[in-house]
Amino acid sequence: MSELESLERRASRIKLLLMDCDGVLTDGRLWLTEDSDEQKSFNTHDGLGITLLHRAGLKSGIITARSSKTVARRAKELGMEFLRQGNSDKIAAFEQLLKQAGVEESEVAFVGDDLPDIPIMQRAELAVAVADAVAETRSVAHYVTRAKGGQGAVREVIELILKSQGRWRDLVADYLK
Amino acid sequence: MSELESLERRASRIKLLLMDCDGVLTDGRLWLTEDSDEQKSFNTHDGLGITLLHRAGLKSGIITARSSKTVARRAKELGMEFLRQGNSDKIAAFEQLLKQAGVEESEVAFVGDDLPDIPIMQRAELAVAVADAVAETRSVAHYVTRAKGGQGAVREVIELILKSQGRWRDLVADYLK
Amino acid sequence: MSELESLERRASRIKLLLMDCDGVLTDGRLWLTEDSDEQKSFNTHDGLGITLLHRAGLKSGIITARSSKTVARRAKELGMEFLRQGNSDKIAAFEQLLKQAGVEESEVAFVGDDLPDIPIMQRAELAVAVADAVAETRSVAHYVTRAKGGQGAVREVIELILKSQGRWRDLVADYLK
Amino acid sequence: MSELESLERRASRIKLLLMDCDGVLTDGRLWLTEDSDEQKSFNTHDGLGITLLHRAGLKSGIITARSSKTVARRAKELGMEFLRQGNSDKIAAFEQLLKQAGVEESEVAFVGDDLPDIPIMQRAELAVAVADAVAETRSVAHYVTRAKGGQGAVREVIELILKSQGRWRDLVADYLK
Repeated sequence: MSELESLERRASRIKLLLMDCDGVLTDGRLWLTEDSDEQKSFNTHDGLGITLLHRAGLKSGIITARSSKTVARRAKELGMEFLRQGNSDKIAAFEQLLKQAGVEESEVAFVGDDLPDIPIMQRAELAVAVADAVAETRSVAHYVTRAKGGQGAVREVIELILKSQGRWRDLVADYLK
Repeated sequence: MSELESLERRASRIKLLLMDCDGVLTDGRLWLTEDSDEQKSFNTHDGLGITLLHRAGLKSGIITARSSKTVARRAKELGMEFLRQGNSDKIAAFEQLLKQAGVEESEVAFVGDDLPDIPIMQRAELAVAVADAVAETRSVAHYVTRAKGGQGAVREVIELILKSQGRWRDLVADYLK
Repeated sequence: MSELESLERRASRIKLLLMDCDGVLTDGRLWLTEDSDEQKSFNTHDGLGITLLHRAGLKSGIITARSSKTVARRAKELGMEFLRQGNSDKIAAFEQLLKQAGVEESEVAFVGDDLPDIPIMQRAELAVAVADAVAETRSVAHYVTRAKGGQGAVREVIELILKSQGRWRDLVADYLK
Repeated sequence: MSELESLERRASRIKLLLMDCDGVLTDGRLWLTEDSDEQKSFNTHDGLGITLLHRAGLKSGIITARSSKTVARRAKELGMEFLRQGNSDKIAAFEQLLKQAGVEESEVAFVGDDLPDIPIMQRAELAVAVADAVAETRSVAHYVTRAKGGQGAVREVIELILKSQGRWRDLVADYLK
């Protein structure tokens, strides 16, 4: 079985797409103001991708070590069902989340960019690193995106999953009537 | 007729330039804060381009799925006559807007970057995709800009239109007196 | 006389460095929020450059069509003596400013990025366009910077001027004691 | 002794990592609003790097000419022990800070990007310039990072130091259990 076939087989099994936030849904920049606010920039192509993922019946969620109302706001806006913030022990959050979602590790994809994402990536059926992830994280990934974090990496993963499941063409067809 | 001639002929007919906002007038990044504010970054070269478009007697407008006071503020600042926000059904907004403007589809250009822009692009006389639009959107465009969204793509379209209409040289001459 | 000699001769005469703001001191992005605020990003290398320019006894100023407290704040912070905002007729602002400064056109450099900067550039002893200026503006410049606006273009101009005046080495030497 | 051996020997001695803020921990952009706020963007990979540095028993600090609550907030968040803001005379701040930390110059690394960083770099055991530092600063550095300021330059320095001290592998192993 070729590497591509192996990748597509993994992608075809996914029911839940989980991801880190900073450096994955964003470009890894934390915007701090002098007061206590924290600003993040999200990508509009990723946003539509997540909408399409949900339309195809898959679920999505965020597991992040930081904690900010901005992330909660974006997750809600996109209808992401699962959100775990402030978890320095990401693997515990991962296990709880899978139980809550009623999904097996063999049905989960995870997108990461740095060392704390590795333990989850080693458990997930499909482990993805963004193009500008650190070397160690890229080395444990089944797939490294062409796009950098915050620049469409999540959209790229979603297209990989939905194409492997034979769902992409129909979703796009809705726009080509 | 060559592809360039065909493109220039389309551009020469345009009386109304419509565009998506996120990813076209901006680089596709949504800046969210912890409170309910939403920040966007607009390009100064695009801004002058829209001013020149109006000076040449053409009209302009924005059709976007999101809804934000920031977009209304920028549209007003630039004197853009038409603004339709919060339209998940962009094609309905497009049809209403054309009626309001008294303009035919054969006189409209549209600039987009993602799947929801495709239905309008399939109807517009001149369909433009920004350089970093998704593949499906680029594939239905008559023209793909060299510039990315938020980095002068709209200015590039405006120059194409005004040059095709023989108006660009005079507008620039005002600055070369 | 070679082109480089001509450029250095022009640079050697400068007593006052004027510049546009958006696209020159910034990368041309206007950050708008939902309320009336307007945010701009300035470059730290440009900032030190302007400090060194003043230390060498030269003066500096900003002429811009937009109007924002942010620009006034940055100009004040850097000790820039001249600031003209909200001037759609930049050439009138330019003439008034020269009178106020007691400086001749043959002693002024101007850095621009778009069409409205051209009239001033045609009058200034040293006309500079940033790397990402529009084509028409680059074509009237004596010098086009290697750096883009907001990414050190102004610092590059200042080094050109101070080196041509034989002042750069001493200013740097203060840091190499 | 090769240049690389010399570099690794210097890195192996470091107990305290000091750095400039703007242009090193950030990309050199100062984000100003119309009111008195000042926003900065920090890199998430740098953040984890500093956490790992502390975990290895090394200390860190910031010496910067500007003064902003944003920097204090980020330093505190990352547990950075030393912070000197508003110091136009960086070398005095450097000397006081070393005394406070009980560390010799031969045990200090400093990361800079512009002229005011040079005096400290000439004293530090390991002088590092970010990839987009000005030419004079790069020329006095023992090491120039591949990454630009705000895009992982500090993380790159930390990996250099911890690898030279034989600590990196163990720190990473915690994530590879």
